Amino acid sequence: MHIRVNAARLMEDLAQLGAIGRTADGGVSRPSWSEADLQARRWLIDRIAAAELVPRVDAAGNIFGRWQSGGPVVMVGSHIVSVPNGGMFDGATGVLAGLECLRRIKEEGIRLRFPLEVVAFTDEEGAFGGFFGSYAFTGVLKSEDISKIRDSTGLRIVDAMARHGMDAMQATTAYRDPQEIRAYVELHIEQGPVLETHRVPVGVVEAVVGIRRFGINFRGRADHAGTTPMMDRRDALLGATDLVQQGRDLVLTDGTPASLLTVGVLHVKPGAANIVPAEVYLTYELRETSAEVLQRLADRSRALAKDVASAWGLTVCIETILDIEPVPLAEEVQASVVSAAEELGLRYFRLPAMAGHDAQVMGRVARAGMIFIPSKDGRSHSPLEFTPDDDIERGANVLLLTLLKLATEA
Amino acid sequence: MHIRVNAARLMEDLAQLGAIGRTADGGVSRPSWSEADLQARRWLIDRIAAAELVPRVDAAGNIFGRWQSGGPVVMVGSHIVSVPNGGMFDGATGVLAGLECLRRIKEEGIRLRFPLEVVAFTDEEGAFGGFFGSYAFTGVLKSEDISKIRDSTGLRIVDAMARHGMDAMQATTAYRDPQEIRAYVELHIEQGPVLETHRVPVGVVEAVVGIRRFGINFRGRADHAGTTPMMDRRDALLGATDLVQQGRDLVLTDGTPASLLTVGVLHVKPGAANIVPAEVYLTYELRETSAEVLQRLADRSRALAKDVASAWGLTVCIETILDIEPVPLAEEVQASVVSAAEELGLRYFRLPAMAGHDAQVMGRVARAGMIFIPSKDGRSHSPLEFTPDDDIERGANVLLLTLLKLATEA
Repeated sequence: MHIRVNAARLMEDLAQLGAIGRTADGGVSRPSWSEADLQARRWLIDRIAAAELVPRVDAAGNIFGRWQSGGPVVMVGSHIVSVPNGGMFDGATGVLAGLECLRRIKEEGIRLRFPLEVVAFTDEEGAFGGFFGSYAFTGVLKSEDISKIRDSTGLRIVDAMARHGMDAMQATTAYRDPQEIRAYVELHIEQGPVLETHRVPVGVVEAVVGIRRFGINFRGRADHAGTTPMMDRRDALLGATDLVQQGRDLVLTDGTPASLLTVGVLHVKPGAANIVPAEVYLTYELRETSAEVLQRLADRSRALAKDVASAWGLTVCIETILDIEPVPLAEEVQASVVSAAEELGLRYFRLPAMAGHDAQVMGRVARAGMIFIPSKDGRSHSPLEFTPDDDIERGANVLLLTLLKLATEA
Repeated sequence: MHIRVNAARLMEDLAQLGAIGRTADGGVSRPSWSEADLQARRWLIDRIAAAELVPRVDAAGNIFGRWQSGGPVVMVGSHIVSVPNGGMFDGATGVLAGLECLRRIKEEGIRLRFPLEVVAFTDEEGAFGGFFGSYAFTGVLKSEDISKIRDSTGLRIVDAMARHGMDAMQATTAYRDPQEIRAYVELHIEQGPVLETHRVPVGVVEAVVGIRRFGINFRGRADHAGTTPMMDRRDALLGATDLVQQGRDLVLTDGTPASLLTVGVLHVKPGAANIVPAEVYLTYELRETSAEVLQRLADRSRALAKDVASAWGLTVCIETILDIEPVPLAEEVQASVVSAAEELGLRYFRLPAMAGHDAQVMGRVARAGMIFIPSKDGRSHSPLEFTPDDDIERGANVLLLTLLKLATEA
């Protein structure tokens, strides 16, 4: 089909939304239920109404715009909230590209087999813990938990939403039967360097990553650095550094090419140049898109930490501090994205999403897919976040053809 | 010779000195020129006078007691200052055992070829930087530096000594021509576990350790832990942990059995579980008694840090933050100690001193030696510091026979 998005209109939308909650250093701050979020919500509802797509807000604050009625719906969307001082592309690009696709399909008068719906989910980024909107929509959110949800200042989401005339306790009524959802497609900036590095415009996302984060504490003995022979020491840092190195080897050997290990925190006690370290605390974070591989890496990492502790005469304590299961994305949606990219003559990579997205919540109950577009230097959650107009246009056209395939083919 | 120390008198002296500056948890605090130090100085001068050994205090505050006059002198001593909340054995044992040896030799009326002198050097432990007394005595102290010497509160040593009627600016006049020193012998607790572990009562110290301490900074790049592939990272912690492990291997392979490497400080920036470390600062401290080996280990460690940085795509900055040359101790004094131990039927180990001592300052200009006695659990600079009476008595008798050999043989 020779239908294409109106790139100028899409860029104008991005610029307008990006001006809401703009920070001094060129980023945007639109945490959920902040004044900037409210302003962005009003703006989006206006834009949906201007396209005559009938805006609707559900009990969880999710914003919808629909084209045509009936049968199971093909959904497209993302979120319009941002992290504090984040970028203007994360989330917003997916919602506005989706809106543009619906506008163009409506303008062309294309006859659809399934209706289309654009969505902006509430609090994907986590001012109130994350995924409030998609959790409510898919039935993950429990009534009894709502009153406990607070932001980092202690503000309850119940009170934050009440300020804007909404009753958070009703959010579970935002649930929609998955039978009514034919597919969910989310366009998003990659937030990583793979596409840009390889000059590939389209990422076909195969799965959304699972995360297993351990807090590991090695304990040895503090000794005088001058008078304690090397062989008499129980140096907690030797165990910790051995684990960092061997853990990396383990992940490279036993994981997939997409498996990730990050040790981002490491504290040494007592922390003096002339005292042998008695204690080291570190975080050990595994990310992997296969649940089986993630479990294997986690099990072997635990065993490795114990072996390493034993080898260096240390004790070790391992605590799970984060546990998110990976979500595979639907083959059918991936096939539609591939077919769209090929139709447009665009190279694509299949790759995993290594950060969290509403698509992973939707993917637990429905056919979900993601399209990635390049991020400059892989930067995200930062004012430095940037994706060129051409890349956005190419991605939006892939999204457009993907939605048409899903909405018109049996 | 069947002369032995009067152990009861020595223990009584140790108990009396140990009561001066006593802390609530059983340690002692006698930093240089503190009230407790002044009280200990007066007590020591009184004890020297009581033994009719003619006490003398030089311009650097060093306290002497001499037996017989003339020719080059055989010196024995250590220090009576302590670290804050340190133990009662470090330093004091060497001074008081030396005093007891002089008393016994005097009492026995033994005819000496060379006179004997006991000394307590000023500020070995470093309230004012360390070794003020032995530096002045050996000519290392420079007049122009004296006014700059301050304690951790900013108090100048000039003002601290003036409070007690002394002119620190005159300290360089405490210099004594090394030609007038036949030998210096220092008895000291080991401050390490070797003698206690092997149940050996005597350590014949071969050399006092040199220290080379580097501050090493690895810089990479902060990246998102979810979206940056393992192979695209420049993780500063991978370089740092590689250096800790390979540095240890280097020291074990290329050093001596006494070579030590300690990484006691390690800081990670930015230090979040989901951000790849951009920067790691660590201290890398080498100790070794051979200057040649220390230099080799330092050179190879620097090269290793650069290789490691390069291998992990990092930059590295290496700064020398401490550089103390090792000092070999005199063969002649070691031979006398060995001979004394054999005469007493005591097993001995030859071992290095891995902490700083006045003997290393004296050893640069004169024949110096050290005798180590066991330290319980190797503990020192702590209220837990402890050496049993029997071990002190055995060490004092080795010291006594050593001094007699050095003072009577040609």
